[in-house]
Amino acid sequence: MNLTHIEHIGIAVKNLGESIKYYEDVLGLTCYAVEEVADQKVKTAFFMIGQTKIELLESTEPDGPIGKFIEKKGEGIHHIAFATTNLKEALKSVEGKGIQLIDKEPRKGAEGLNIAFLHPKSTNGVLTELCEH
Amino acid sequence: MNLTHIEHIGIAVKNLGESIKYYEDVLGLTCYAVEEVADQKVKTAFFMIGQTKIELLESTEPDGPIGKFIEKKGEGIHHIAFATTNLKEALKSVEGKGIQLIDKEPRKGAEGLNIAFLHPKSTNGVLTELCEH
Repeated sequence: MNLTHIEHIGIAVKNLGESIKYYEDVLGLTCYAVEEVADQKVKTAFFMIGQTKIELLESTEPDGPIGKFIEKKGEGIHHIAFATTNLKEALKSVEGKGIQLIDKEPRKGAEGLNIAFLHPKSTNGVLTELCEH
Repeated sequence: MNLTHIEHIGIAVKNLGESIKYYEDVLGLTCYAVEEVADQKVKTAFFMIGQTKIELLESTEPDGPIGKFIEKKGEGIHHIAFATTNLKEALKSVEGKGIQLIDKEPRKGAEGLNIAFLHPKSTNGVLTELCEH
């Protein structure tokens, strides 16, 4: 298990345009990409700060995971993603320690990364993503 | 406004000992400090990963901010802290852009940092901390 840094922080927002404005105009960050991830029913916007990305997530459908999250909890921080140098091995390691996985195998996420989610029931309520470049 | 990196991610937990075990044994991080911040009614545990700290927060009193957060939302990610090179100037800048501040002036936080919180009403639901070493 080799986690190197926080790859990104995922934030659920109602309106991508308004939120981009806040991160750019108020916090002074720069949105360098907007991307739709169809199978997750989200539109995403990315900002870089140090080693870490802020990933804003707007639901494209009310029944998508982000739509449901906002309905239940409101806008806010949705997940943390840790960068790992070997995702398959990391998944095997955490599963061997009794952690429940949402994704048993790596899948493709935004920006072409290999990603997998751990279940928040096993991680003290923090939806946790592992990802590999 | 000069934000350099994500200084830490604050995570509300019910039981600091159990959560430290998860971050150490499962994710392979090392807890390098445990500290009580009496005026915030929390006990904190710190882990370093890349440029960023994970700050676990356990309430020492049910009526503290973390106790109330867990009662309302359950365990999970509580706030993000951005590092800035000039906190006073940063606060002046965001306030000038209509952002509601929880702390109008810097105050002392964990690890001796100067810190101030922005109100989540102004920041798309994300409790946002600015901090300066």
